[in-house]
Amino acid sequence: MAEIVPHWLTKQADLAPNQTAVELPDGTIYTFLELHDKSQSFARRLRGLGVQKETKVGILSANHIDTVIAVHALTYLGAVAVMLNTRLTEQELDYQIHDADAAFVLVQQHDRELDAAVQTFSDVWMLPEHTGELYTEIDLDLNFTIIYTSGTTGFPKGVIHTYGNHLWSAIGSMLNLGLSNQDKWLAVLPIFHVGGLSILLRSVIYGIPVYLMEKYSKQLVHDAIMTKGVTIASVVTVMVKDLITQLGDSTYPDTFRCMLLGGGPASKSLLEQAKARHVPVFQSYGMTETSSQIVTLSPVDAMEKLGSSGKPLFPAQLKINAGDHEVGEIQVKGPMVTKGYFNHEQATQQALTDGWLATGDLGYTDQEGFLYVVDRRKDLIISGGENIYPTEIESVLSSMEGILEVGIVGKSDAKWGQIPVAFVVACNPSVSEKNILDFARHKLAGYKVPKDIYFLDKLPRNASNKLVRSKLSDRLIDNDSQSH
Amino acid sequence: MAEIVPHWLTKQADLAPNQTAVELPDGTIYTFLELHDKSQSFARRLRGLGVQKETKVGILSANHIDTVIAVHALTYLGAVAVMLNTRLTEQELDYQIHDADAAFVLVQQHDRELDAAVQTFSDVWMLPEHTGELYTEIDLDLNFTIIYTSGTTGFPKGVIHTYGNHLWSAIGSMLNLGLSNQDKWLAVLPIFHVGGLSILLRSVIYGIPVYLMEKYSKQLVHDAIMTKGVTIASVVTVMVKDLITQLGDSTYPDTFRCMLLGGGPASKSLLEQAKARHVPVFQSYGMTETSSQIVTLSPVDAMEKLGSSGKPLFPAQLKINAGDHEVGEIQVKGPMVTKGYFNHEQATQQALTDGWLATGDLGYTDQEGFLYVVDRRKDLIISGGENIYPTEIESVLSSMEGILEVGIVGKSDAKWGQIPVAFVVACNPSVSEKNILDFARHKLAGYKVPKDIYFLDKLPRNASNKLVRSKLSDRLIDNDSQSH
Repeated sequence: MAEIVPHWLTKQADLAPNQTAVELPDGTIYTFLELHDKSQSFARRLRGLGVQKETKVGILSANHIDTVIAVHALTYLGAVAVMLNTRLTEQELDYQIHDADAAFVLVQQHDRELDAAVQTFSDVWMLPEHTGELYTEIDLDLNFTIIYTSGTTGFPKGVIHTYGNHLWSAIGSMLNLGLSNQDKWLAVLPIFHVGGLSILLRSVIYGIPVYLMEKYSKQLVHDAIMTKGVTIASVVTVMVKDLITQLGDSTYPDTFRCMLLGGGPASKSLLEQAKARHVPVFQSYGMTETSSQIVTLSPVDAMEKLGSSGKPLFPAQLKINAGDHEVGEIQVKGPMVTKGYFNHEQATQQALTDGWLATGDLGYTDQEGFLYVVDRRKDLIISGGENIYPTEIESVLSSMEGILEVGIVGKSDAKWGQIPVAFVVACNPSVSEKNILDFARHKLAGYKVPKDIYFLDKLPRNASNKLVRSKLSDRLIDNDSQSH
Repeated sequence: MAEIVPHWLTKQADLAPNQTAVELPDGTIYTFLELHDKSQSFARRLRGLGVQKETKVGILSANHIDTVIAVHALTYLGAVAVMLNTRLTEQELDYQIHDADAAFVLVQQHDRELDAAVQTFSDVWMLPEHTGELYTEIDLDLNFTIIYTSGTTGFPKGVIHTYGNHLWSAIGSMLNLGLSNQDKWLAVLPIFHVGGLSILLRSVIYGIPVYLMEKYSKQLVHDAIMTKGVTIASVVTVMVKDLITQLGDSTYPDTFRCMLLGGGPASKSLLEQAKARHVPVFQSYGMTETSSQIVTLSPVDAMEKLGSSGKPLFPAQLKINAGDHEVGEIQVKGPMVTKGYFNHEQATQQALTDGWLATGDLGYTDQEGFLYVVDRRKDLIISGGENIYPTEIESVLSSMEGILEVGIVGKSDAKWGQIPVAFVVACNPSVSEKNILDFARHKLAGYKVPKDIYFLDKLPRNASNKLVRSKLSDRLIDNDSQSH
């Protein structure tokens, strides 16, 4: 049965009007009442652009207060926010915008050439307010956000999140981490990813402040934890490294109780360094389809189970398609798991069976039920917390004239964890590394552009002619040992 | 859409197997793993009695560990627990047992003459375990408990609670009070009332211990708060009085963070005494139909808004059928509100409109939205935390030969808050106070038996011939001022 709850921002504006909702590094504060008023005002202006129930609106912006306001404004109209990654190329963005059927895109500035209607936040603030009812309740079954992910299929698909998905995600996190009225959650992860977005939503669900940072700087994050009363920070591995270096021989305040680590594995040595410096790193496992973390180490186990991602959160279930404690595909289920991909019924059916999501990731559980992720989604490359799907890059590069076929694998990198590299079979001898990189930079977000190009006569394939990327990875190790 | 979550006790046995689930005053501890094992074992034995999905099973017991086990055991079979008040007479119990269609009743001892099949907990423990699947998941839309309440209609009705009702109630409470891994919740309120039952369920949902007391003693409750690490205690007004006296000039440990007060209003002077002694009393408002508290003062406001019941919890909404800040009927809505009464479709339709429950209670909200309950459900008498419905007593006493009509009202009482007194119109001069009391004691729980009987020639009625109880109350004040 569809559950109805009061509108969550209106609720917090009522329960705790003067409580800080958003704090910016320059000291600017927005209370829940102010955020409520601004979001409702923005909603009334958006109405002039025809936004109504189920209208899809793209949001392409860094972590700006207007991004927060825009997300909440859409909830007051029952519209759907399509969260767009600012690091994508215009081609990539256009694909997502059209696939999601977005009516227009909200941006901070007119600095991208998109094949879509675009409105800056300032444009919208200049519009008059239109009267009419705003939503006072939230139906948990309604769609709220769409965020794109490529998965193994090579083309990006829009993951639909209902309000219920996000609310249950917040509840699961709270039941694991607890909740104090002193809590303040640092959001430096981009809001266009589910890991950043979920912090905003926890803020209005819990009634706690979010400390919103527009971009990552190790110095600023360090300062926020040391002096701004931040109690929980969501981070990716590359940040943990930075922050431990930055910390030096100091220690964080006791009130800093959780560094929630998502977006890829951390090395055991890094986790040990964190432990030695009393940095409360909690590994977690999740993906866009699970509305952020779905498996997380609890405070109790964080220091005892280094390397594990923990146990499924209270509302979630986990199973591995394999014998006891053997490696197999990780499957998860729970009310925070997406009900499907927007307009991709077939992909939805492939991914979901009776509520169980086949993640494509490999892992095992130990005797006590702790999850160890062995390998992320087949061949997934994680670079500085961003997911890179080899098939997506391969399909882009293969479309270049003079290229016959392409294989992409991840290469270890001290700073980013991994970086993508390309193995190319050219059918025209004039194709150069520079040609390929120019082509790639035009079509792919910078972090997806291969950092090295290797030319081969042919790619390793198995009996059924499928690319065997592991052989390319082996070759990479051979190359490496030769060149160093 | 029906949400599915993992079975909550199995989940806690997995997340925190060695964490204390139940602690008894004699020092006995049951971990979540032990409680899980015992509850599953009890479920397998209950299966031998034919208990399966949707079977209704009465539970008539004090706060004993077996009561806890029985409640959880029923969840593993998808059966429904009918929670029975041990203070009721056999006639009252028989009515509820048959109305709820209970297959049998679980009791501690064979000490009641019920017109129903009865099994003691020990009987069940002697049965063999039957194999078969136990529930591994919980469908939040399924019915879980039935608890009787009389309301204004004069006959008791079974309030149905789904799993979702109880889960959302726990979530709403957590979002208000926060959650710490140091929490321990004292359950001295009877589990057969929703206020006590909800503590058990929060324990398995939050993964925190419940400190379970079989019966109320101010000394034992005081000791538990002072020395047993209790952080939250649910109480009724009469207990607050006792405990403040018991506290004397001492103060509770800082870790004791909430005395959650339900089951009727507290006087301002009592709340002021509590405030002066730093006793963190949080008033709340709720009823069986709302799965316990639905409006609660938050920690922030507890000391500033003495006398208010607070604001509706995060998932809940409140409206008053009256002008702004005027007194009217309190209506509430939210996923913790019952979907209806068992087998009483008409009463359900009368009580619920579009998810809004008409409580029958009167109240108003102040400028900041805080609820002040002016009058509980029309003529409801609250005596030591037990609800007494005048119509129920009136209909019982009216059935006595020689009595023409009866009016019941509450009289102020220093210890119990209120006690019921009766105004009787006899049609046979031989009917005496003693006759009436003998008759009442046989038919009504002790706390419902009128403490005084006044004989009248006729009862005050209005134009439409409805009893005007307020005139009886006025008369009581007159009587009082004459006799003292």
